[in-house]
Amino acid sequence: MTLSTMTSLHAVVMAGGSGTRFWPASRAARPKQFLPLVGGKPMIVATIDRLDGLCDQDHVWVATSKRLGKPITKLLPSLPKDRLVLEPEARDTAPCIALAAATIAAVDPEATMIVLPADHVIAPVDAFQAMLREGAAIAQDGATLVTFGIAPTFPATGYGYVECGAPLAGRSLPGFAVRSFREKPDRATAEGFLRAGGFLWNSGIFVWRVDAILRAMRAADAELGAAADAMLAAARKKEKAALQRAFLQAPKRSIDYAVMEKAPQVAVVRAPIRWDDVGSFPALGAIAPADGDGNVAVAANGADLVALQSRGNIVYADGARTVALFGVEDLVVVAVDDAVLVCPKDKAHDLKALVEHVRASGRQGLL
Amino acid sequence: MTLSTMTSLHAVVMAGGSGTRFWPASRAARPKQFLPLVGGKPMIVATIDRLDGLCDQDHVWVATSKRLGKPITKLLPSLPKDRLVLEPEARDTAPCIALAAATIAAVDPEATMIVLPADHVIAPVDAFQAMLREGAAIAQDGATLVTFGIAPTFPATGYGYVECGAPLAGRSLPGFAVRSFREKPDRATAEGFLRAGGFLWNSGIFVWRVDAILRAMRAADAELGAAADAMLAAARKKEKAALQRAFLQAPKRSIDYAVMEKAPQVAVVRAPIRWDDVGSFPALGAIAPADGDGNVAVAANGADLVALQSRGNIVYADGARTVALFGVEDLVVVAVDDAVLVCPKDKAHDLKALVEHVRASGRQGLL
Repeated sequence: MTLSTMTSLHAVVMAGGSGTRFWPASRAARPKQFLPLVGGKPMIVATIDRLDGLCDQDHVWVATSKRLGKPITKLLPSLPKDRLVLEPEARDTAPCIALAAATIAAVDPEATMIVLPADHVIAPVDAFQAMLREGAAIAQDGATLVTFGIAPTFPATGYGYVECGAPLAGRSLPGFAVRSFREKPDRATAEGFLRAGGFLWNSGIFVWRVDAILRAMRAADAELGAAADAMLAAARKKEKAALQRAFLQAPKRSIDYAVMEKAPQVAVVRAPIRWDDVGSFPALGAIAPADGDGNVAVAANGADLVALQSRGNIVYADGARTVALFGVEDLVVVAVDDAVLVCPKDKAHDLKALVEHVRASGRQGLL
Repeated sequence: MTLSTMTSLHAVVMAGGSGTRFWPASRAARPKQFLPLVGGKPMIVATIDRLDGLCDQDHVWVATSKRLGKPITKLLPSLPKDRLVLEPEARDTAPCIALAAATIAAVDPEATMIVLPADHVIAPVDAFQAMLREGAAIAQDGATLVTFGIAPTFPATGYGYVECGAPLAGRSLPGFAVRSFREKPDRATAEGFLRAGGFLWNSGIFVWRVDAILRAMRAADAELGAAADAMLAAARKKEKAALQRAFLQAPKRSIDYAVMEKAPQVAVVRAPIRWDDVGSFPALGAIAPADGDGNVAVAANGADLVALQSRGNIVYADGARTVALFGVEDLVVVAVDDAVLVCPKDKAHDLKALVEHVRASGRQGLL
């Protein structure tokens, strides 16, 4: 099957995420996907840019929370307002995907739909687009749900894994039937996966036809399926209030747990890309260049770093300011207009505790 | 002798200092004496305020470099412009004091003159003023040069010492003839001073009559004395250009080296004050309050500190920003509008090396 015989290709960028692991650079109203963590562009802008030439601009959707709708529109001025899929509240990925699928299906019942997180670092673009095209081709049977797996380079405990089964025949990229999904493993299990081979990191990127994912929802999770059907009905009638109500009937579940782990026909394509979900400040060390002493700076809008007798530090700075490090090692230093953070790299995964402390101290303006 | 029979009392605040030990809070155009290191006021403002009630406002002089004249006038709007003693270039303390003494002597030949650094932390004010009055009374003989010594609390190697000789009779505060001045000692020598007793830290605060210091200059250092006389002649004729030229004839020497160590009649008053010259960021730990974990914050203009699982840190922050520390110990963190510094406390004495690195990197705007 060639691309020209495919059903129309839509992409849904999931940009509703919130979190504390990039505080104080990220805030409730400026979460990670807004930050220029790589290449000087907000991650969501880079994510949309990566779709250029793959999807019609008119087929790009952004799913996000109500509170982020306005700031996202500001970042993406060319996004038509009706391409913003607004979740009335955060309910994990399954309701979000149901809402997007229903919204697209209402206008294009056989559309092929790519689902992408807004906050991943991915390169190169051509390999990325080729992999999505391959996934879209696999999904044309109207039944297969396609996910993308990253060949693991270390026994990560922060990612879910996909266990590969039988290879798919006649594909231009290595693809497999999915044998199982595995949630974030402990260290020993992760090491076992690496030793065994045949396990890939679950990238959270998917392709399916909208009719296929809606059918899979009905089959895998009656509550989710009913909510999705109600969303579809409301979307067809363009009843916004009903659409929102239907969303709120959906259970707060991840798409992996609610659907992917149960669906009978799931394929995984081994992604020929460099991929990083940039889970916390120290992860910047893997995606941004380091100086000769292993200091990494992500500096935007005029910021820069001067380091002397310092090594292994991660600096994130925004605005017209210089961060000067002198004689320090393995720190995370974040400097933005109204806040500075200093913590050891090995504490950065636990920034939530600090943010809770900031909240408890009454500094609401910093959240 | 009572205060009313004294010659008129003038105070000269020496505010020409520059330095790197408070970078990036301090800059060439905003040295330490401009910083609100204690009590929320720039140190020079606090220094002037401490003279309130001791000297007529019209008898307060500020000696500084040409480059700092304007910013000082801005900080001290009530200082008459002709009370600013401008040094055409930095030449250490002896030429500065000669210039101030000549300028005052030209209008009031027997004036008593207090000399004060602009960047010391001193309390309480009443004891400070009492000690200066005592010094002024001692100086009324028109010959004695009076210095003030601080009882040492540890074997400091960063201060000069004054060795006390015979006690002065009939004084309301303990005073001594000075046996010798000792330059900054090594550790063992400093420990010896403490064991021996009778040694005081040289505070850099002086009182003398202008005629006495000018006479002492002539006697101790012919080059300095000649320059001082030329300054006096120029000041009497109100010839500004000649005054500047005369200043530039003076050798670059400290008042201790050029005069005090050689003068035959020097007294030291043991100062009944808390005194700190705040030599570097870690010194803020001794003068600002600490939280329960020993974190000290000097925060001005809306800045504040949030610390979690952190101890023994020194934070200086200026402007509407929060410094958040998480899991760090014994760091100096400085956050101002255009720069952030992170270094261990035990590197802070060596900030000059970092500033030189910043200079070499071409960031002139940060100097």
